[in-house]
Amino acid sequence: MRRFSSRSSDFLPTEYTNIKPFLPSLPPPPVDSDGYPVGPDVLAALFPSGMIQHEITLEPRVPIPVEVLDAYRVYRPSPLIRAVELERVLETPAHIYYKYEGMNPAGSHKSNTALPQAYFAAKDGITRITTETGAGQWGSALSQACSRFGLDLDVFMVRASFLQKPLRKTFINMHGGRVYASPSDRTKSGRSFLEKDSQHPGSLGIAISEAVEAVLSEQNSCYSLGSVSDAVCLHQSIIGQESILQMEEMGEYPTEIIGCTGGGSNFAGIAFPFMEKMLTGGKHIRFTAVEPTACPTLTEGKLRYDFGDASGLTPKYMMYTLGAGFIPPPIHAGGLRYHGMAPLVSHLVKLGIVNPIAYAQKKTLNAGKEFTRVEGILPAPESTHAVAAAIDSAVEARESGEKKIILFNLSGHGYLDLAAYENG
Amino acid sequence: MRRFSSRSSDFLPTEYTNIKPFLPSLPPPPVDSDGYPVGPDVLAALFPSGMIQHEITLEPRVPIPVEVLDAYRVYRPSPLIRAVELERVLETPAHIYYKYEGMNPAGSHKSNTALPQAYFAAKDGITRITTETGAGQWGSALSQACSRFGLDLDVFMVRASFLQKPLRKTFINMHGGRVYASPSDRTKSGRSFLEKDSQHPGSLGIAISEAVEAVLSEQNSCYSLGSVSDAVCLHQSIIGQESILQMEEMGEYPTEIIGCTGGGSNFAGIAFPFMEKMLTGGKHIRFTAVEPTACPTLTEGKLRYDFGDASGLTPKYMMYTLGAGFIPPPIHAGGLRYHGMAPLVSHLVKLGIVNPIAYAQKKTLNAGKEFTRVEGILPAPESTHAVAAAIDSAVEARESGEKKIILFNLSGHGYLDLAAYENG
Repeated sequence: MRRFSSRSSDFLPTEYTNIKPFLPSLPPPPVDSDGYPVGPDVLAALFPSGMIQHEITLEPRVPIPVEVLDAYRVYRPSPLIRAVELERVLETPAHIYYKYEGMNPAGSHKSNTALPQAYFAAKDGITRITTETGAGQWGSALSQACSRFGLDLDVFMVRASFLQKPLRKTFINMHGGRVYASPSDRTKSGRSFLEKDSQHPGSLGIAISEAVEAVLSEQNSCYSLGSVSDAVCLHQSIIGQESILQMEEMGEYPTEIIGCTGGGSNFAGIAFPFMEKMLTGGKHIRFTAVEPTACPTLTEGKLRYDFGDASGLTPKYMMYTLGAGFIPPPIHAGGLRYHGMAPLVSHLVKLGIVNPIAYAQKKTLNAGKEFTRVEGILPAPESTHAVAAAIDSAVEARESGEKKIILFNLSGHGYLDLAAYENG
Repeated sequence: MRRFSSRSSDFLPTEYTNIKPFLPSLPPPPVDSDGYPVGPDVLAALFPSGMIQHEITLEPRVPIPVEVLDAYRVYRPSPLIRAVELERVLETPAHIYYKYEGMNPAGSHKSNTALPQAYFAAKDGITRITTETGAGQWGSALSQACSRFGLDLDVFMVRASFLQKPLRKTFINMHGGRVYASPSDRTKSGRSFLEKDSQHPGSLGIAISEAVEAVLSEQNSCYSLGSVSDAVCLHQSIIGQESILQMEEMGEYPTEIIGCTGGGSNFAGIAFPFMEKMLTGGKHIRFTAVEPTACPTLTEGKLRYDFGDASGLTPKYMMYTLGAGFIPPPIHAGGLRYHGMAPLVSHLVKLGIVNPIAYAQKKTLNAGKEFTRVEGILPAPESTHAVAAAIDSAVEARESGEKKIILFNLSGHGYLDLAAYENG
């Protein structure tokens, strides 16, 4: 029985794949606070031109710039692994595969979009990127990408995570980035939240407000988003593209694809290339998006236009949302604590193509412990949501006898989250 | 300019290469406390039969068991990267390459020998491995390998590191291993050191004594060593073998090879396959072994027979040693705090083929920070010794104008050492 696909460089895609032209309908466009569709000019105040192109393109294939491809080569293709030991322990007839995105210098899938975003900024002559980060994976990945492309970086980090994971700041600082606990006194948005509560735990929505506000007041600076946007989902498509070739090499094809969802991009990355095949006549696949019960955007939120940030500085997006003012409790999976969801993922949930479920922290950390013990790979707390769903699905297969082929995205490693496992 | 070699699975070796048959002379054999050579029977009380074969073989090529090859495939071939940004910052004419062994589930080169050691134990029907660990990299790698091959694991961890890096214990526990701070009250050796000092910081020598003593009193149990031995150096030869093919692909050949040395195995791993070529008529290479000034085995120790452990339970080895009772200060590079050195590396220093140097902690951590900032990869404190030597050599080339091709081994990542960088 084969455990690992090869990591042939032939499997590294040279184009991103875009799900949009294959969808039965497109999500409604982002709008301004008066409800009018926003055009590329609004985006131009925040993003480099290359990113805007990636955000709005309807081309099915989008070339990956050679400079970005060169940077991908250090860690891509990422491994696709059959969880042989987990199958054995679960006594399941299901075959379980995982794509492991944690084995790269930043430790998660976030580098897949950090690298093109930094590249496009540098190409436009921008000298500084400003961003937010939740648990710190995005800030870490972007700090490496900025170091690679010679850019300064300012990171607004959700205060709850800033306090829980102080070494993320060390990591980002070592790569040349600056980190501010958010809400901070550096922006009007930040100060308004601090006035209400000087120890405010923060939220991704607030941190986005601060980053956007900072960019709008600066020269030669741009904003960078680690998830949610169509462009980010496009960049993450390399995960699914590699998986298609690697599953083919293993002689199997998934019947179910699982990913955790915070902003939606790692799930989109593994799911969309397979979804394109399904929507163009390929085999049926069940797509499962797993979120934390502490931030149940898809399972308890409403599909409506809402701001991407807490202070209403961004356009409004048609997405499942808990409300831009939602402050989630400080669970360990800080990367999943976003009030909204990628408009593309939201639209696919509405279309019934993606099935959302929500799990509690205790269950997912226990799944992470079990996975670590039997498979020898330590998942990030975010990724344990996908692990838990894969385990549940495989157990169900044991009971029903169904011959499932499960593929899930193990989006990052948990080296900086050992304390969460110790205390969680 | 090409930055990365491909990671073609064609580059994954199927045999270990053995430097011994190519040496002008062999190191003197291990002896018992009376000075008589010890035979395989003494080793048989401690090691699985497959390991003893690997320890004593004089065959130039030793097949890698298919079960081990299968386990290597998840992370090998490891990447070989040209440090283009570092070259630019140093304004050096030297080309600097590094082999990155940190991008695997355990985070260091230690998995290369943990996997065959666990495999050979399982093959002999052994159910438990006992070992020591310094900084915890070895214990982490072996815990994964034991999980993979269904074995129990007991780890005696040097108390200074146990206190400095508590999350290493969490990591090993999560993989099913048990961890004891050494000296412990579980063994006679441990108790004798605790009687002298109830807060004894421990040493690798003491932890080895405890592990060996525990194994000798148990059934179905074996001992496992993470460095030093000929067998471990043999397993690590896959690093150098891949590097030969990858450097060839990059169209270059090293003039200098650098590795950090604690027990000597990561250095041996990258150096020996190139050394074989040099000793059989290939181009001259300068081999540089870098150790900490806090534990200056090769630069200030004596070449003589000494015990591998602190209590005299192991055979005596002909090696550079600071004395089996040496207690190094608790520097962050815990993996380099061993009183002795691999007999093969010691012998090559004596022959003048390997050049040892020693660096202070402040210098190496600063080199690690610089490397992280410009190359975007966070090295383990041990590996920063090799980084610092590569930087010094490249700066020398800037001054002399020499066209050096430097290759160093980046033996592990520093995710669990961020506090060392923060405080060091």
